[in-house]
Amino acid sequence: MRSDQIRQGRLSGERSANLEHFLASMDADRWIAEADLLVDMAHLLGLRRQGIIDEAPARALMAALLDLHDHGLPAEAFDERFEDIHAGKEACLIDRVGEDIGGRLHMGRSRNDEVATCIRIRLKQEIIALVRSLADLRATLLDVAAGHTETVMPGFTHLQHAQPTTLAHYLLAYEQAFSRDAARLREAYARVDASPLGSAAFASTGFPLDRDYTARLLGFARPAANSMDAVAARDFALEVLSSIAICMTTTSRLCEELVLWSTSFFGFVQLDDAYCSSSSIMPQKKNPDVAEIMRAKAGTVAGALTAAITITKGLPMSYNRDLQELTPHLWRGVEAARESLPLLSGMIGTATFNTERMAAEAGRGFSTATELADVLVREYGLAFRTAHRIVGRAVRHGSLDLATLEGAAREAAGLSVVDLGVTQERIDAVLDPRHAVAVRTITGGPAPAAVAVQLAEQKELLARDVAWAKETETALSRAFEDLISESRRMIV
Amino acid sequence: MRSDQIRQGRLSGERSANLEHFLASMDADRWIAEADLLVDMAHLLGLRRQGIIDEAPARALMAALLDLHDHGLPAEAFDERFEDIHAGKEACLIDRVGEDIGGRLHMGRSRNDEVATCIRIRLKQEIIALVRSLADLRATLLDVAAGHTETVMPGFTHLQHAQPTTLAHYLLAYEQAFSRDAARLREAYARVDASPLGSAAFASTGFPLDRDYTARLLGFARPAANSMDAVAARDFALEVLSSIAICMTTTSRLCEELVLWSTSFFGFVQLDDAYCSSSSIMPQKKNPDVAEIMRAKAGTVAGALTAAITITKGLPMSYNRDLQELTPHLWRGVEAARESLPLLSGMIGTATFNTERMAAEAGRGFSTATELADVLVREYGLAFRTAHRIVGRAVRHGSLDLATLEGAAREAAGLSVVDLGVTQERIDAVLDPRHAVAVRTITGGPAPAAVAVQLAEQKELLARDVAWAKETETALSRAFEDLISESRRMIV
Amino acid sequence: MRSDQIRQGRLSGERSANLEHFLASMDADRWIAEADLLVDMAHLLGLRRQGIIDEAPARALMAALLDLHDHGLPAEAFDERFEDIHAGKEACLIDRVGEDIGGRLHMGRSRNDEVATCIRIRLKQEIIALVRSLADLRATLLDVAAGHTETVMPGFTHLQHAQPTTLAHYLLAYEQAFSRDAARLREAYARVDASPLGSAAFASTGFPLDRDYTARLLGFARPAANSMDAVAARDFALEVLSSIAICMTTTSRLCEELVLWSTSFFGFVQLDDAYCSSSSIMPQKKNPDVAEIMRAKAGTVAGALTAAITITKGLPMSYNRDLQELTPHLWRGVEAARESLPLLSGMIGTATFNTERMAAEAGRGFSTATELADVLVREYGLAFRTAHRIVGRAVRHGSLDLATLEGAAREAAGLSVVDLGVTQERIDAVLDPRHAVAVRTITGGPAPAAVAVQLAEQKELLARDVAWAKETETALSRAFEDLISESRRMIV
Amino acid sequence: MRSDQIRQGRLSGERSANLEHFLASMDADRWIAEADLLVDMAHLLGLRRQGIIDEAPARALMAALLDLHDHGLPAEAFDERFEDIHAGKEACLIDRVGEDIGGRLHMGRSRNDEVATCIRIRLKQEIIALVRSLADLRATLLDVAAGHTETVMPGFTHLQHAQPTTLAHYLLAYEQAFSRDAARLREAYARVDASPLGSAAFASTGFPLDRDYTARLLGFARPAANSMDAVAARDFALEVLSSIAICMTTTSRLCEELVLWSTSFFGFVQLDDAYCSSSSIMPQKKNPDVAEIMRAKAGTVAGALTAAITITKGLPMSYNRDLQELTPHLWRGVEAARESLPLLSGMIGTATFNTERMAAEAGRGFSTATELADVLVREYGLAFRTAHRIVGRAVRHGSLDLATLEGAAREAAGLSVVDLGVTQERIDAVLDPRHAVAVRTITGGPAPAAVAVQLAEQKELLARDVAWAKETETALSRAFEDLISESRRMIV
Repeated sequence: MRSDQIRQGRLSGERSANLEHFLASMDADRWIAEADLLVDMAHLLGLRRQGIIDEAPARALMAALLDLHDHGLPAEAFDERFEDIHAGKEACLIDRVGEDIGGRLHMGRSRNDEVATCIRIRLKQEIIALVRSLADLRATLLDVAAGHTETVMPGFTHLQHAQPTTLAHYLLAYEQAFSRDAARLREAYARVDASPLGSAAFASTGFPLDRDYTARLLGFARPAANSMDAVAARDFALEVLSSIAICMTTTSRLCEELVLWSTSFFGFVQLDDAYCSSSSIMPQKKNPDVAEIMRAKAGTVAGALTAAITITKGLPMSYNRDLQELTPHLWRGVEAARESLPLLSGMIGTATFNTERMAAEAGRGFSTATELADVLVREYGLAFRTAHRIVGRAVRHGSLDLATLEGAAREAAGLSVVDLGVTQERIDAVLDPRHAVAVRTITGGPAPAAVAVQLAEQKELLARDVAWAKETETALSRAFEDLISESRRMIV
Repeated sequence: MRSDQIRQGRLSGERSANLEHFLASMDADRWIAEADLLVDMAHLLGLRRQGIIDEAPARALMAALLDLHDHGLPAEAFDERFEDIHAGKEACLIDRVGEDIGGRLHMGRSRNDEVATCIRIRLKQEIIALVRSLADLRATLLDVAAGHTETVMPGFTHLQHAQPTTLAHYLLAYEQAFSRDAARLREAYARVDASPLGSAAFASTGFPLDRDYTARLLGFARPAANSMDAVAARDFALEVLSSIAICMTTTSRLCEELVLWSTSFFGFVQLDDAYCSSSSIMPQKKNPDVAEIMRAKAGTVAGALTAAITITKGLPMSYNRDLQELTPHLWRGVEAARESLPLLSGMIGTATFNTERMAAEAGRGFSTATELADVLVREYGLAFRTAHRIVGRAVRHGSLDLATLEGAAREAAGLSVVDLGVTQERIDAVLDPRHAVAVRTITGGPAPAAVAVQLAEQKELLARDVAWAKETETALSRAFEDLISESRRMIV
Repeated sequence: MRSDQIRQGRLSGERSANLEHFLASMDADRWIAEADLLVDMAHLLGLRRQGIIDEAPARALMAALLDLHDHGLPAEAFDERFEDIHAGKEACLIDRVGEDIGGRLHMGRSRNDEVATCIRIRLKQEIIALVRSLADLRATLLDVAAGHTETVMPGFTHLQHAQPTTLAHYLLAYEQAFSRDAARLREAYARVDASPLGSAAFASTGFPLDRDYTARLLGFARPAANSMDAVAARDFALEVLSSIAICMTTTSRLCEELVLWSTSFFGFVQLDDAYCSSSSIMPQKKNPDVAEIMRAKAGTVAGALTAAITITKGLPMSYNRDLQELTPHLWRGVEAARESLPLLSGMIGTATFNTERMAAEAGRGFSTATELADVLVREYGLAFRTAHRIVGRAVRHGSLDLATLEGAAREAAGLSVVDLGVTQERIDAVLDPRHAVAVRTITGGPAPAAVAVQLAEQKELLARDVAWAKETETALSRAFEDLISESRRMIV
Repeated sequence: MRSDQIRQGRLSGERSANLEHFLASMDADRWIAEADLLVDMAHLLGLRRQGIIDEAPARALMAALLDLHDHGLPAEAFDERFEDIHAGKEACLIDRVGEDIGGRLHMGRSRNDEVATCIRIRLKQEIIALVRSLADLRATLLDVAAGHTETVMPGFTHLQHAQPTTLAHYLLAYEQAFSRDAARLREAYARVDASPLGSAAFASTGFPLDRDYTARLLGFARPAANSMDAVAARDFALEVLSSIAICMTTTSRLCEELVLWSTSFFGFVQLDDAYCSSSSIMPQKKNPDVAEIMRAKAGTVAGALTAAITITKGLPMSYNRDLQELTPHLWRGVEAARESLPLLSGMIGTATFNTERMAAEAGRGFSTATELADVLVREYGLAFRTAHRIVGRAVRHGSLDLATLEGAAREAAGLSVVDLGVTQERIDAVLDPRHAVAVRTITGGPAPAAVAVQLAEQKELLARDVAWAKETETALSRAFEDLISESRRMIV
């Protein structure tokens, strides 16, 4: 195959392999190679429709494109001497149809709009896949939660036993966050969904292209509105990376729980062996490695986002080659989430929760002391701060039985809870963690009835996201099928 | 005033000033002090409505709250020995109405839901202000662009002269990006717009609060759906920070243009003196300091985002004190954008563009060579790559006159352009930058007619964002007024 | 006081307060105000020594400087209309001695070299203070470790019980890291220790300054070798920020331990009440807030570093105003470490370690299983992998008694450990965590003798760092005293 | 080959390919595969020397190791079902010598100390290579500078023409920064240069290993002093990444200069074609792509650093699997610098500087106005601020001829420069840029004599760094040769 066509005119001299490697984006271009052929077909259909290219060369080109599409790009298209897949693929075409015809595909087009279009196509597919993966994870969380609305466990603040809650309430807190991640990705999709094609280097072109037509062929909602913005902006990439970074931050929090819960200290969960590793030296170990690596992936994505922001900062218009260095960070972020979310779903779905340990711990650490203070307020008329101080003092003395409480009340507030009518029986009832959960029936609370509302609402929301993903994916696939059919029709 | 009420029950010992300072969030709490009083009033109205607090203490508390609202929180409320404004303000209240009454305000509430509610209230106000500032900046860009649809200038790729465009087309590329920033902020607003109040420490409360009622009083669209998520999640903060970081990245790019354009090399723009500084040692200097600092602010916000992500990563549920350290980064990011955007608008609006320099440069550097190659294709039937190579070769020979072009054609493609009918006259017409702009009439292109479409569409979009900001701000202000009126009614 | 002297010549127009605030660095300049006066004195002594300024104006200026030094800069010097403390202070001087004399101090100097010199002076002081704080922390760790060389506790990998170790060995792992932090800071000091003074705007000056003389007066090791680098480089700031970020990452790890260890699950440590907070709603809570905030500070410093790198990236030579925006991030990072390290030292030094809980947990979770496998290899001749697999299988069956081990050996390797001579007595001895610790006597291991070596070596290293900090600080203080004496001599 | 040996004992169940891929570190492990075999040999020599392994199995193992060393690890060792190269290679060994013997290599060793040792070995090699590359770059800068000590050019502040300097002075500013990068890397090397081997999982081992011996065999200065720190700490990786990030920040600044200087506006430099690309659509373009990508690499490394810090933050002792996710970021950072520095050196060394353009611009933009103000002070006795104001006013009037200056003096200071003796001839001499450079002879200044001092000093410093790199590399290579010789002796 011939060498890089683009350099031939203007530049002299040969390049070292090091230089070629430095300039090449071939690794990242594997993400967009398939999209690139679709972009070619759409552009070619557009050129023909507008009469910019004659029938014969158009047919020859389309035949070669369909052949590459049907049989895949040959390995040499990815050779680093071509710098990028666009040049590599063009060399393939010219090899097959000659330069006179092969070169015509670039009429009214630059690599700047070509690559931006390819990235957006692939990114749309990835966003849909991420929304789907999030949906699966959310479905798992909702399922597991539905089975544990009565499973009492300790809730923590500052990792200290705080108040009793239920496993359902706990898991639904995470599901809430993941549902927001899905919403962010859907909204980002709408901004990615504009076609740069036809923007050429940045100033569009004098060829009378129909950008609406090619945008529609490629499944875009619309052409990008300004040709300079279309090739130079990468805020869409930063936005998707941000959304993923936020999602992975939440993911890392849930992984931290799984790591903690599977220690012998907590003993709340037994992860399925598939998600664990043993040690090369300590035969007894069962380590939550998947959760650890996934926790670390949040750092990986944070780094990808930092890189992308730093690269973009301070670049003047329009296209600068710096943007090539940005794209691999986008794909790294996408990949981290794409790999993590299904595994997290699997890890939660196959985990065995030790509900007895949870119940036993729910009552420890004076975690119902707040409820006792509240009852002193609600039923016995104490001021809130006074009740809080009395119970706090009793905790410091090590017990919440009536005698200790009475002593604390005298010490801290100069009053008698016995005189107010407090009894040991009432205290015992109040300190039962199931009582604390049962009375928390308000909106958002852990009482089973309140959790049932949350479950119902979130299932509804999930159903809508699933429907969106399905419809969007179907529409996109149909557009690509139509594009290929239309392309085949040209060469019949 | 007494010391911290919250520590009194459980903990012994005194703290050093260093420790108090380390734990205190008073600096950042200035951002939420006003919101905190609104939250108190709403909570108190809610307690009273549900019969959780009796009329007399409720009236006493409300009178004290309104007094603080009307006259402002006293300086001692911000003393660091209170750690945060919530404790400082409570000490104020207890000072005025005694502990028995003052303490009751905390029934069914924790600092965890209180602070989360306060942050969301203030953040909503800031988002509205940012959307407004972005709207002003966009209006300025649209205005200036409208006056420069015929102002030809060079466009750049790789900072090399590439092709002619117009100043209008150039500025509209930035306006596009800023309009997406506004969209992102509006969407983030919807996720911030849920009230945590009533979630208490994380498990909600046994007091029968009506969270819908207090959410409405505080101008929220709804209560947060899960009480643990409500206090522990900060993805809303990460999202707003991300949106600001992306916006500031674009801002830094426009500032880079201003720095470049105001060099004596480019000479495209003269910034108003107000936005420049001189040197302490070089009397002739006029430096674009505002643009430089603003460019750097993109780094400041990127750092704030990194800090916030790193802080959140790996935190288990529910509230951890780490979250306190996150909030100042949110405000730092908000402040950077809030300060920058109006100055950028002013800087653009008062700048003098040197249209003669722009026009002179538009034709330099062979920047219409692409057009010439295109014309060789469109009008003389050459293959694109062939035309590209011929023109590139001629550029290398230093000229695009007919003789050079002919030589290049023979060398690079073994053909004669003279034979094809190319004349010097045709070349001259094609190389005129105004011609290159004029033929780029397709969607998104720089031709005046295409730019007019962009202007019209973006004005429409801007009007919708302005309307949103106005309506949202009005609704929020009205909610606060109603809340205060309702509060005053209680003590009549 | 008059307004900004620097703008008067070149620039027209007034500025809004918003603009002044945007441009001003006054908040951060409080860090360098004191150093700035020292720089003035040194520069003035230098001007006089070289005969660049006459005696009379020199004496008048010096008298004014000493007055400002002795009584502090007035509040108006920090007014934001001056942009920075250098301009604010110059206005003070001119107010006192008139413009004719006051203005002469700027001969051969620019704010570019002035601010760079000030930042380096203050940063040197901060580095010394950080090395001292690290030394205190290390001394505490070494002290506590010295008292716990026999305190057996579980070590963890993946937060799973892994193998027994001692508290001394555990704490010394952290001390190692902190000793490297001190080394990094010392090395960074050497690079900060060069004086930019005399570099002026970047091109030095035609005035015959003696840069060696002023460098010496200000306690610097040498003048910076290239005047452009001297004003434009901030890699010294990035280096110190990096060193602090690394240190705080380690700090965050130790804080994570303290958070975990103070849960009721671990129960390994009781933090002093001074370092804890209670809850506003849960009276029983004792939360490790200081450790949590300190853990989060690692994020704050990571953010400061990201900001500083992003700001510096891609700036051409020499001074750009962006650099002003960098400095506050440097101080924020310094402050986070300066506040954290002494508190961490106090937190460790006052903590009560529950050695019984530690000992009880040391033997749990099959954490001596590795030792058993090793003994099967060492004493009974099994291949390592075989022994590992047998013990792993026994763990899976839930016990390491002889019967289970025998079953596992037959299953997993088709052999009999009983036949090899293994007895229940031998197993019991081997599984005792104290045995596992006692046999780990090799370099770096947890056996008391090995730990004693580590203690001795690290004390030696610590002593050298303490000596360095003392000598360096003394030399610096002496230089400043000499400078002031010399300055006073001028006006006698 | 058999499947993963390590899982066999403890864990049941199969894993999906997705899971295996998620857990695997094979891509990054290619960096350490060679080092891993050296570690095996050293460990085996140590086991044998201490009598822990018998002669026969030791010889069999060593023969297999040498075979792998001589012929390279087979592809299947990198199969992802092994998770990492350590397990993959062990499977290879067991395949060849059977489990009974193959398994024995893991006596007294864990993957935790193995991988940490491997990373440090490779990182030491990379540091040396980076110091070498920096040395080449510095040599290039010094060479080019030596040829341009009289090449006058404009210096910039705020990218505005500021004062004349020379190309030598300019390039030496960068060389200074790169020499500090080398110093940082050398110092980091000293901290990387400690062997974790023998630390096993973290608690060392009961096998009587001689860690000094294996450290020496592997070319380390010493064994790591605490076995827990040895496997859990990654501050050495953060330090190297920081050093690289700082270096790349400087690199990005120099690349920004090259991008600016090669615009047609500046026209200061003509980059060699090899370092440029053309456009796919604009045949006239010659773009500085290598400089752009290199500028962006600073963002890539900043992202790698952020990722590594975020991953490490808050991890408790000792080894956590998160650390596996950190290592690829380290290599990504190393690779970015390793690829960039030689190309930057080549780009500078082959660039053609347009000294006429530089000279022409040196006098533009009133860039010698400072010198004129200084001369008014030095020769005509004006106060500095007064002179500054007069010259600034004249600049505002557009000229520095005598008449304008006289008018400015009367307006701004009520005095006459003509009366003071200023003549047009004196002004013309002072405004010549060569004069401004010639008088700046002080330490660090641009005058040729001052630059000669800088050149001499930096050559000296460079020679020392080159010597260090050579000695260190030689010592390391010799250690590895000795290790292999010793290993071969075992099987003779």
